[in-house]
Amino acid sequence: MKIDINVDAGESFGRYTLGNDGEVMKYVTSANVATGFHAGDPLVLEQTLLWAKEYGVAVGAHTGLPDRQGFGRREMNITKEELRSDTIYQIGAIDGFLKLHGLAMQHVKPHGVLYRMVSENEAYIDTFLDAVKEYNPDLFVMLPEYTPGFRRGLEKGLKMAGEVLIDLSYDDEGNWILERNKKARTPEEVAERALMVAKDRQIATVSGKRLDTPAAVTVCIHGDGPNAADIARTVHKVLVDNGVTPCCLRA
Amino acid sequence: MKIDINVDAGESFGRYTLGNDGEVMKYVTSANVATGFHAGDPLVLEQTLLWAKEYGVAVGAHTGLPDRQGFGRREMNITKEELRSDTIYQIGAIDGFLKLHGLAMQHVKPHGVLYRMVSENEAYIDTFLDAVKEYNPDLFVMLPEYTPGFRRGLEKGLKMAGEVLIDLSYDDEGNWILERNKKARTPEEVAERALMVAKDRQIATVSGKRLDTPAAVTVCIHGDGPNAADIARTVHKVLVDNGVTPCCLRA
Amino acid sequence: MKIDINVDAGESFGRYTLGNDGEVMKYVTSANVATGFHAGDPLVLEQTLLWAKEYGVAVGAHTGLPDRQGFGRREMNITKEELRSDTIYQIGAIDGFLKLHGLAMQHVKPHGVLYRMVSENEAYIDTFLDAVKEYNPDLFVMLPEYTPGFRRGLEKGLKMAGEVLIDLSYDDEGNWILERNKKARTPEEVAERALMVAKDRQIATVSGKRLDTPAAVTVCIHGDGPNAADIARTVHKVLVDNGVTPCCLRA
Amino acid sequence: MKIDINVDAGESFGRYTLGNDGEVMKYVTSANVATGFHAGDPLVLEQTLLWAKEYGVAVGAHTGLPDRQGFGRREMNITKEELRSDTIYQIGAIDGFLKLHGLAMQHVKPHGVLYRMVSENEAYIDTFLDAVKEYNPDLFVMLPEYTPGFRRGLEKGLKMAGEVLIDLSYDDEGNWILERNKKARTPEEVAERALMVAKDRQIATVSGKRLDTPAAVTVCIHGDGPNAADIARTVHKVLVDNGVTPCCLRA
Repeated sequence: MKIDINVDAGESFGRYTLGNDGEVMKYVTSANVATGFHAGDPLVLEQTLLWAKEYGVAVGAHTGLPDRQGFGRREMNITKEELRSDTIYQIGAIDGFLKLHGLAMQHVKPHGVLYRMVSENEAYIDTFLDAVKEYNPDLFVMLPEYTPGFRRGLEKGLKMAGEVLIDLSYDDEGNWILERNKKARTPEEVAERALMVAKDRQIATVSGKRLDTPAAVTVCIHGDGPNAADIARTVHKVLVDNGVTPCCLRA
Repeated sequence: MKIDINVDAGESFGRYTLGNDGEVMKYVTSANVATGFHAGDPLVLEQTLLWAKEYGVAVGAHTGLPDRQGFGRREMNITKEELRSDTIYQIGAIDGFLKLHGLAMQHVKPHGVLYRMVSENEAYIDTFLDAVKEYNPDLFVMLPEYTPGFRRGLEKGLKMAGEVLIDLSYDDEGNWILERNKKARTPEEVAERALMVAKDRQIATVSGKRLDTPAAVTVCIHGDGPNAADIARTVHKVLVDNGVTPCCLRA
Repeated sequence: MKIDINVDAGESFGRYTLGNDGEVMKYVTSANVATGFHAGDPLVLEQTLLWAKEYGVAVGAHTGLPDRQGFGRREMNITKEELRSDTIYQIGAIDGFLKLHGLAMQHVKPHGVLYRMVSENEAYIDTFLDAVKEYNPDLFVMLPEYTPGFRRGLEKGLKMAGEVLIDLSYDDEGNWILERNKKARTPEEVAERALMVAKDRQIATVSGKRLDTPAAVTVCIHGDGPNAADIARTVHKVLVDNGVTPCCLRA
Repeated sequence: MKIDINVDAGESFGRYTLGNDGEVMKYVTSANVATGFHAGDPLVLEQTLLWAKEYGVAVGAHTGLPDRQGFGRREMNITKEELRSDTIYQIGAIDGFLKLHGLAMQHVKPHGVLYRMVSENEAYIDTFLDAVKEYNPDLFVMLPEYTPGFRRGLEKGLKMAGEVLIDLSYDDEGNWILERNKKARTPEEVAERALMVAKDRQIATVSGKRLDTPAAVTVCIHGDGPNAADIARTVHKVLVDNGVTPCCLRA
């Protein structure tokens, strides 16, 4: 049994520090690195890649909307053409650093509201997936499996990686719930949810049911919380203690 | 006899149009494409590359300072680390589009005040050149030949391309002169200067002398002037009419 | 008979010039000055106010979304709190220059998609109008009269100035039509439409009917078109030649 | 005996939190509020002013360079005209909120490298001071007293407020020292230095001497350190315990 643990990383910006990437990176297997659109900057980006290299963490491009003030969480009515070019630009920017450091990109994961836009909004799904495929058809794409975007990606022959946001809540249809006041979960609770995904390919929903997630191959830990390192450490430990091997998507 | 004609391109931004790239591109052999730092944006970038592809123009990264409001012309006291990461980021962003469109990057040219900073300021010369070399040692680097940066590049084994800014003025030491009120030159005058570079490897200085420029292999036309297309057309025609073949650096 | 002619101004940004404000300003009576969010910058802003002062043009704040790349035309899902603070910030920034130059702000006009958001979207109408009122209840607010936002403003006791976009088209319900390929109108056609508003308080719709616009007190000329100065000059002349006095809202 | 305790505030930006303004504000008498150039945004700005109002803290504009990524700490070769308009813009933006909330601006303090530029660089001193004076000659201006900028301000009749950066080190000429690795001072040590300024109008220099600072009327606590609230609380307590009344400049 194995599963990928991914984290959002590289979200600091100039004087502003977000998360504790140097520590969290020790316990995850994939890192979604911000590209300087919704978060991050070139200096932060390169430092983040060096940590990923040091700890053997696979790197993906965490592409976002061009809205730093809104942290990529404010939906913007961009055109398809903008989405396409913005996506390629961001992937390319990270890829340059990766190649220079002898690394290869593993995946792409859209950030914030873009994650929802390219999963669910027909205006954007094809454009996003086609841009990734045209750039490099071997890249994994992280999306939630119960979405049109995920299914479309499979049809296009992309390597779709079903993702479960283990620190968020889900309803019975497999939709994650954006809580205004994010439910506080202890590291142990998050780890328990990760273990359920890894061992049973299931998630517990808010109604108390269990939902099958057969395509789930990666669980996400948000890196910007105050206790992100604690959560990452605990998730990693609980998985290992229960016979699950954390490893990246391409392993 | 041959020479490269390069132009700054891709400097438009959202609603703001600068230059007439689709027309100028017909008459040049290399394009320095803005990366979204001092000018340009992903959508403009990709469109510019498509024109370059259509007209067989070789593409380089026009790297700049992160100052769109100042158009990369206000010196900023960035750190060496910032210069390094900013440079790699910008090259990578363009390179992604180039690969997707089946093209290969030819060169790097620093924009605006960065051109001077990495030519003349010891704090930045090595950092810039090393970043380019680490990214891809086969890239050409456009710099003025009478500068420490140019000589250092040769020592490092980089493919240094001596550049003459034919629409600007030079003093007898080979320094170009930043005129507050840029001297208006007719397309014919600019073409005359281009021809002198191509045939004699010389430039006329403000004192009336002629300065040898043995390393000059490319002449620059600024793309943001109102008559950029006229200048490009005339330079191209005058060169061809006089037996000079305009061709890119790697040709 | 009198009417206000307003124009969007101050939309240049650093190296990027948009419009011909120094010329257009001679023929209008109110200027909506960009604030540095969707367009403009402090240097452009102050220069624009100096032109307004020179030609006796009344100044308003042209508040926009914080999206320079999209020129304030991409809808963004901002919060009410963001809309409130963004609005006050922008008005204040212009007001500082106005007071320093011995001028007083006349009006506020939302720009681009924000014009539609605060006219029609219940999530934003009250927030926007309340922010203006709290800042200064004597400011005029330019909005289209056939909208919930306009009516709500009247209920709140604000000085609502009904605006007709004479270079755009309207349907029979008074909605202006965003044409993908903006219909090219000659300066004379635009002037004709302005005259109809001024003399008859009516606009011609795309179906050929005439729609009553009893609250129309200002007509808008977009300043970013290539022939903005021609249009402004012609509108002004045709109005005067037909006995209409162009004058600002507070005159 | 009395002295002003000022703090840099409002430096958070969107998702990025810097400092603990809601707590620090309880112990200071003046707040230098970021304007959205080097730090801050409209939403943060208004929230910061509400805290200032709640705790009776006098507000000033913390004007900075337009460089968020560099946090206003990278010197930029801006023009005098840009400095002027940028300064007025920033003061105006804050002033709008202040008036709306029934408050009046007390002072202006340049941030980061701009503090040094307008204290010491002849290219900028007059422009900055004249812009403030033209905006409102009753505003206090915080600058270090041993600088050309401070003296010039006095000559111009401005209300110059001599400031001591009590958490930084000074040499015997009254220059503060930018330490690459900021010397860690305990809250008690900082408070001791504040007390020396308040009671003796002196600062201890790195050589162990004491330098007279007769014009010192305000001491600065940097709000972005991890223990800013501790320092503020301790400084306030030590001053009060020793018979010094913390109060703002205009009190």
